[in-house]
Amino acid sequence: MKIIIVGGVAGGMSAATRLRRLDESAEIIVFERGHYVSFANCGLPYFVGGVIRNRDELLLQTPESLEARFALDVRIDTEVVQIDRAAQTVSVRNLVTGEHSVERYDRLVLAAGASARSAAIDDTAIPTHTLRTVDDVDHITAVLAETSGACAVVVGGGFIGLEAVENLVHRGVHVTLVQRGPQIFTPLDPEMAAPVLDRLRERGVDVRLGTTVVGSAAPGTVALSDGTTVPADLVIDASGVRPDVTLAEQAGLRIGRSGGVWVDGTQATSDPHIFAVGDGVEKADAVNGSGTLVTMAGLANRHGRSVADSIAGTAEQAAPAVGAGILGIFGLTVALVGWSEKRLVEAGRAHRIVHTHPANHAGYYPGAEGMSIKLLIDAESDAILGAQIVGGVGVDKRIDVIAVAMAAGLSASALTRLELAYAPQYASAKDPINQLGYVADNLARGTSVNLQWHELAAARAAGAVLVDVRSAGEFATGSIPGAINLSLEDLRERLVELPRVPLIVHCQVGQRGHTAARILTQHGFDVQNLDGGYRTWLAGTSNLVVSPTVERVPV
Amino acid sequence: MKIIIVGGVAGGMSAATRLRRLDESAEIIVFERGHYVSFANCGLPYFVGGVIRNRDELLLQTPESLEARFALDVRIDTEVVQIDRAAQTVSVRNLVTGEHSVERYDRLVLAAGASARSAAIDDTAIPTHTLRTVDDVDHITAVLAETSGACAVVVGGGFIGLEAVENLVHRGVHVTLVQRGPQIFTPLDPEMAAPVLDRLRERGVDVRLGTTVVGSAAPGTVALSDGTTVPADLVIDASGVRPDVTLAEQAGLRIGRSGGVWVDGTQATSDPHIFAVGDGVEKADAVNGSGTLVTMAGLANRHGRSVADSIAGTAEQAAPAVGAGILGIFGLTVALVGWSEKRLVEAGRAHRIVHTHPANHAGYYPGAEGMSIKLLIDAESDAILGAQIVGGVGVDKRIDVIAVAMAAGLSASALTRLELAYAPQYASAKDPINQLGYVADNLARGTSVNLQWHELAAARAAGAVLVDVRSAGEFATGSIPGAINLSLEDLRERLVELPRVPLIVHCQVGQRGHTAARILTQHGFDVQNLDGGYRTWLAGTSNLVVSPTVERVPV
Repeated sequence: MKIIIVGGVAGGMSAATRLRRLDESAEIIVFERGHYVSFANCGLPYFVGGVIRNRDELLLQTPESLEARFALDVRIDTEVVQIDRAAQTVSVRNLVTGEHSVERYDRLVLAAGASARSAAIDDTAIPTHTLRTVDDVDHITAVLAETSGACAVVVGGGFIGLEAVENLVHRGVHVTLVQRGPQIFTPLDPEMAAPVLDRLRERGVDVRLGTTVVGSAAPGTVALSDGTTVPADLVIDASGVRPDVTLAEQAGLRIGRSGGVWVDGTQATSDPHIFAVGDGVEKADAVNGSGTLVTMAGLANRHGRSVADSIAGTAEQAAPAVGAGILGIFGLTVALVGWSEKRLVEAGRAHRIVHTHPANHAGYYPGAEGMSIKLLIDAESDAILGAQIVGGVGVDKRIDVIAVAMAAGLSASALTRLELAYAPQYASAKDPINQLGYVADNLARGTSVNLQWHELAAARAAGAVLVDVRSAGEFATGSIPGAINLSLEDLRERLVELPRVPLIVHCQVGQRGHTAARILTQHGFDVQNLDGGYRTWLAGTSNLVVSPTVERVPV
Repeated sequence: MKIIIVGGVAGGMSAATRLRRLDESAEIIVFERGHYVSFANCGLPYFVGGVIRNRDELLLQTPESLEARFALDVRIDTEVVQIDRAAQTVSVRNLVTGEHSVERYDRLVLAAGASARSAAIDDTAIPTHTLRTVDDVDHITAVLAETSGACAVVVGGGFIGLEAVENLVHRGVHVTLVQRGPQIFTPLDPEMAAPVLDRLRERGVDVRLGTTVVGSAAPGTVALSDGTTVPADLVIDASGVRPDVTLAEQAGLRIGRSGGVWVDGTQATSDPHIFAVGDGVEKADAVNGSGTLVTMAGLANRHGRSVADSIAGTAEQAAPAVGAGILGIFGLTVALVGWSEKRLVEAGRAHRIVHTHPANHAGYYPGAEGMSIKLLIDAESDAILGAQIVGGVGVDKRIDVIAVAMAAGLSASALTRLELAYAPQYASAKDPINQLGYVADNLARGTSVNLQWHELAAARAAGAVLVDVRSAGEFATGSIPGAINLSLEDLRERLVELPRVPLIVHCQVGQRGHTAARILTQHGFDVQNLDGGYRTWLAGTSNLVVSPTVERVPV
């Protein structure tokens, strides 16, 4: 059996090493058009920032080490330029010598990855780089090494863009972040992205929303669509990636509607002798089963291993992708899984929403850090459709727990029943995850009815009265304009003061609001609890974040 | 509806507050024999250690705050001494005034908790305290405040005992830890407990295994069963707890075989008007469905909430207990869920075992910390039966992920398919959880056969030859006596040197061993991989830890 693998990083190399472990006699050739295989692509921004100091740390394997341990024939600087499916051959070009050759295969694995989308800034006279390869970081660090007090423009506020920003700032570079849309980090909903924007600005990043780069105005400057120019010794283009499907397309393989190579649940393409894996491939979405792009290293590695099993004839169907992701940005951890509210609204999928603001561990144990959680739930089935978490320590744990619950098909209400390891320095006896479940369970049973921050204005316009059940002291430090203050502790005695109109109650985070709503409901009031309380409302309305799918609250 | 709740801490108070939220008109009385309700019992050791500095932090609620917010009638210093089930009344004694009274109930909730088992050290003349209540910590801190350079004996190396040790040492107290059995922290298997023992001794704790306290030898000393005496200004008895079932027994309620009050899946006792919850109650074990005791705050809180739903008529069946627990001890995190190898062996349950030693995040990102993981798997169904993890940062995350996978019924092999959030400072593209799944999957398919550290001696005695596939440099720093060194990189060329007898291969942690085993298997050798490699073998054999269920390896 002769197997050719195109692409020698995450997915391709996972396939290659697993193939060798399964079949000592197979001939396995890996073609990599770059100069490096199996490098730490997720570490590249941190090398730019000097967090990872030794460049060799990025190079996890070499052709030599892979030959020694796995008997792999790894050929770097070598591009596969064409596939002849009928002949089962690939045409290969050595990028150093220019030499062409042809290799026969029994099985072909495409792991070409994704390429950077261009932000259309070709007319800048300033060095512009993507942040995808070892060569990219070599170029970027060379520019930075030459320039003291450097200024950079980063285009795109997604995962790579924000990692680039953090690391450039860490290195002392002044950064302008240019984001085409009205919100930073669009995988999040706007109220969840608000703390990220705050943090960027606190750290001195010049964030330009709704803006694009239009070219270079004068040497060392970049002109923006808002009419300003900003200094730039360097532009990092992190405006996104698209699947690299050139080879697959030329070969007539089926391309999915998402733009990635179509594969079945065993990573086989429309040609049974050709498999594909990684960022170039369409995945099945866990929420609705549709073809989707999820360019995450974890999936590439996992599916790479599956390819080997497929070729060995023992693969199981791949699990659909839940789209778990995590980002560190200036001490904040931002994590998500599944679909956002925006996406659910767009798709017309009926959903419920829960916002909470728990601490990562027992409040009485020193050092507790806060986080904000948003859970998206199917209104009919109570299935978990997504989650977003922003905060400090413990965010990574909670997103993984939700990702597992979601993958396992647990309902949102079932989060109440999860038994998580508790000691006061690690968690709470009622873990944030259980708390999410409690709120979800109350919503599912109709014990509680909540209202979202972006629904408040319309509800009030229709005659609802807003009651803030926090203490007078809390109320005094900041409140939603027009709210009546009537603390939870006084509520039972002062019920008569409340008008018999629809009420909306709220507290700081939603918990006392829930108790107040229960009291009022049982006394015959029509009442809704403002989800996530004052804190979520503030995040949603304070940052001038305008999204097409949510209304701005006029206050 | 009049509801009486006996016990005002975790389970009882969760029931009370939820009951109020569900029913504004119910009369709810909480009797608590102690002076405090809803206190932070898991925080008590940390107040002793001065980690929690403000005693008020331990007191989460007061009768007054509960009256104000939840309209609860909370009576502290009040003991329920008898239940008359026919009359639906309880007899109550005010511990301050001595006054008796009788209260009628429609529903009764027993949340009496567990009481400390005595370590039979009554004849010591030294202050001896358990560590269960606010009064306990007041007494302990009073002794410590009076004594400079204090010495303490802690009896019992379980959760509370080890938390007491850490906190006493943190306060500058010299500690002798007396453990009846041959192993510290018996919820773990011996090789997993070895690093805990190492850490205790590194921090100067005088650990006495296989030892008990026999009395006081001279003033200020405690005599031990090993014939020695040790100085002690204080003895902390953490030898364990047993369910407090006095009231339930007197009332003729069914007691489970585990010794806890029997309840059904809605927390109802054998009397449908009486519910029970918390440490005093028997839980259903997730592994085999049997009645079991799990004295964890999380379960008490969760089941307390369920009691309220049960009384409201809307409870779902409780999820069985997986027994998740976590402990911090001198910078180590120790976490577990489900059953140990010891327990599986005792029960005769056929199982597979996986040991791994991953880092918490990508090795190329600075600050990665190691951990050791043990996974217990049902040999027939591939179900996850338990896990143990010891290490640094990220242990709490992984135990929770496994606990959720276990509760959701995912197989061990399905851990390969979990999509966990990855960035290099949080995890690895192949997360430790996925890696566990890879090993488990290989075992389930028969792609790999492994051997446990305690099976090595017998296998070698039967003629197997041990091959260490690490590099010569690693081999030189320490190896298993009698092993042949033949590095993985040289293996293919030097196959002829190996004898055609059963081989056992090993590396440092098991991964290269697996690759070596695959090579050898395909070349016709009979080969097993030493699970967890040199590191697990060393942990299992280095600490003179003798367990009745595992053999000691004679080297």
